[in-house]
Amino acid sequence: MRSGDAAGLSATRARRVIAAGELAQDALSRACRSRIAERDGTIGAFARLAPEDPPAKLGALAGVPVAVKDIVDTAGLGTEYGSAVFAGHVPDRDADCVRRLREAGATILGKTVTTEFAHVTPKATRNPRDPARTPGGSSSGSAAAVADFMAPLAIGTQTGGSVIRPASFCGVFGFKSSIGRTDTTGVHELARSLDTVGWFARAASDLRLLCSVLLDHGRVPAPLRARPRLAFVTTPYDSRAEASAKAACALARLALSAAADVVPVALPASYGALEALHRRIVPVEASRAFRRYYDEHGDKLSPALREFVELGRACEKDYAAALAEAEAARRAFDADIERFDAFVLPAALGKAPVGLETTGDAAYSLFLSLLGPPCASLPVGEGPAGMPVGVQFVGARGRDEELLDLVVWAAERLGLPVD
Amino acid sequence: MRSGDAAGLSATRARRVIAAGELAQDALSRACRSRIAERDGTIGAFARLAPEDPPAKLGALAGVPVAVKDIVDTAGLGTEYGSAVFAGHVPDRDADCVRRLREAGATILGKTVTTEFAHVTPKATRNPRDPARTPGGSSSGSAAAVADFMAPLAIGTQTGGSVIRPASFCGVFGFKSSIGRTDTTGVHELARSLDTVGWFARAASDLRLLCSVLLDHGRVPAPLRARPRLAFVTTPYDSRAEASAKAACALARLALSAAADVVPVALPASYGALEALHRRIVPVEASRAFRRYYDEHGDKLSPALREFVELGRACEKDYAAALAEAEAARRAFDADIERFDAFVLPAALGKAPVGLETTGDAAYSLFLSLLGPPCASLPVGEGPAGMPVGVQFVGARGRDEELLDLVVWAAERLGLPVD
Repeated sequence: MRSGDAAGLSATRARRVIAAGELAQDALSRACRSRIAERDGTIGAFARLAPEDPPAKLGALAGVPVAVKDIVDTAGLGTEYGSAVFAGHVPDRDADCVRRLREAGATILGKTVTTEFAHVTPKATRNPRDPARTPGGSSSGSAAAVADFMAPLAIGTQTGGSVIRPASFCGVFGFKSSIGRTDTTGVHELARSLDTVGWFARAASDLRLLCSVLLDHGRVPAPLRARPRLAFVTTPYDSRAEASAKAACALARLALSAAADVVPVALPASYGALEALHRRIVPVEASRAFRRYYDEHGDKLSPALREFVELGRACEKDYAAALAEAEAARRAFDADIERFDAFVLPAALGKAPVGLETTGDAAYSLFLSLLGPPCASLPVGEGPAGMPVGVQFVGARGRDEELLDLVVWAAERLGLPVD
Repeated sequence: MRSGDAAGLSATRARRVIAAGELAQDALSRACRSRIAERDGTIGAFARLAPEDPPAKLGALAGVPVAVKDIVDTAGLGTEYGSAVFAGHVPDRDADCVRRLREAGATILGKTVTTEFAHVTPKATRNPRDPARTPGGSSSGSAAAVADFMAPLAIGTQTGGSVIRPASFCGVFGFKSSIGRTDTTGVHELARSLDTVGWFARAASDLRLLCSVLLDHGRVPAPLRARPRLAFVTTPYDSRAEASAKAACALARLALSAAADVVPVALPASYGALEALHRRIVPVEASRAFRRYYDEHGDKLSPALREFVELGRACEKDYAAALAEAEAARRAFDADIERFDAFVLPAALGKAPVGLETTGDAAYSLFLSLLGPPCASLPVGEGPAGMPVGVQFVGARGRDEELLDLVVWAAERLGLPVD
């Protein structure tokens, strides 16, 4: 195979052709760097590139380049968390997820653009499907890099909707792990009780491949049911959704109904309060994480982040009650999802909006980030203006492997790239 | 008043006599330093002293010296977390709780001895009531410093039983805040979902005074009921308790029954599983916090901590399930405590054991640390060998102020120092 084609490979396929001797160990990295040189002036996915390293010969990700969101520490490679407060900052150690990637033989390709501290204030990354539109955020650069063939895999993080929404907007696969299933050591805190690591890929199997590297080791998932039980859920947030988001779910339902038990389920009105509950917890934790920047470098923070810290201080007295309500909501969710292999719903309210001033509404993610289950976005739909719309699969908490097995199964039946 | 007597003052009284001009602003600090010079060679409560600073003239804690556990960052003052890994380490900023203390006018007196990273491996601090015995841990030096009149107030932290047990063993008041009510920024992580800040004092009102400084601001507690409802609880851990611990509770019950509705309540058997559940969560979070020390400085960690990290890695696959079980247990606890103003039970299994090799069993704290409510230990009982035994008051989650109002109320009726 010509190395010029390599940038289009999924990680799963790249491993296969490298193992077969059909592709040089370093060909995929080189192809990605060529693509970045060609395209990133337009897209702005990368904050900086890593120096070229000889690729590892061994490991599940040997020869596979991975882009890493700039909210994640990389030893010896600049990490600025999207903030002027950290201009020129170079960590002296890798975040846990980066350590795991390197141990699996991956090449760290570079750091991708994040919104300021993974909060809402965007940088200038553009959506590869339409550069006039936002790629979503906060993992803006990671989603865009994978969508534009600049990297087969990229690491993101999600506290609100920072993986699932950009995956939907950019038309790639995205996965957000259960709360507690990924080690966030070395990821800059936004809200410590909700921060999770996630990742982007262009093939369903690639999500599963990274799962074996980045989740805790050794857990053998329960086998997939012969006929999975899928709850196509309606939610209190649906009134804000575009027709395209609902159409993508309808399409998925139609395509899967032959092979799965497909059940319409209306999530109760109590789910409608969870977006507000998310907003009673995240600002408080963020105000603790960012207080020192606010106090010492307030002029380097965006107005939105300063206001968020102030909101957090004002909400402190309600915080313990909010935590308790979140626990109750999680238990209710556990009971609600128990009879199903997944909830299926839109990944975002619709296509990526025009403009780079905001990264869009995280409506279909905030309540799920609060509840803590694993979530995946599949690039199922194509909305108006040719923009992609994702369909979200949500599993039981802690059962990340099961969800990704189901995602691979669903991708096959939906005609999406599997490997 | 003579400044030589000052070391015996509570913070509440010291503020009063300083305000009345009866005591110089710096007299209490000087008295504490004299006491330390005289006694700490025997007790070993302090890891190091702060340089003498001119005391603040304003603030709720003006003129009040506070000792701070060496797991808590102090700007410009050595902070070694009880570990050779951090020998000579000097943080460049204060932990949030230290910042709040300084803003309230407190003088940081010095850093108190902690077990290694607030885990189980003790240093050589002795119990002031009997130097052959442990003061308990992990906040060993903080409890001992307050008990031995070296400081009127000291900061500790609790993840398992690190405030309540040493308070009980040393015969002082101890308080552990609800999960989420104190900002742990700048406190070295042990287990991030359970770490909390606590404090020690020799008078009940002092606990309340620190509460106004260290908890989030502005929350007005519900007024105390005319006849508080106290559940004197039996637990699945009682079979391990000494008679002295039960006797202390019986004494409190007798003394309070005239003024309170006192109800015997048997906590269900499900509470007996919470100690094991604590052990399914803390090692996992600790293994994440300590992995880099384990990998890079393994020779500087105690065997116990190394084993704990290894246990944590082995438990990772069960972690998400354990978190969900903890949530369920918390909701059950909320329902169980709802009809009462407090649960009352022993603070520890009995008096401090002889020897300095361990800091004792945290049985009556582990399950409560997991559940997350505010807990206070009152120096009610005197057991065999003249050693103190504490009685523990436990409030509803997040209602820390209400619990401490109740503690002041109870201290009055129990003939304990109130101010």
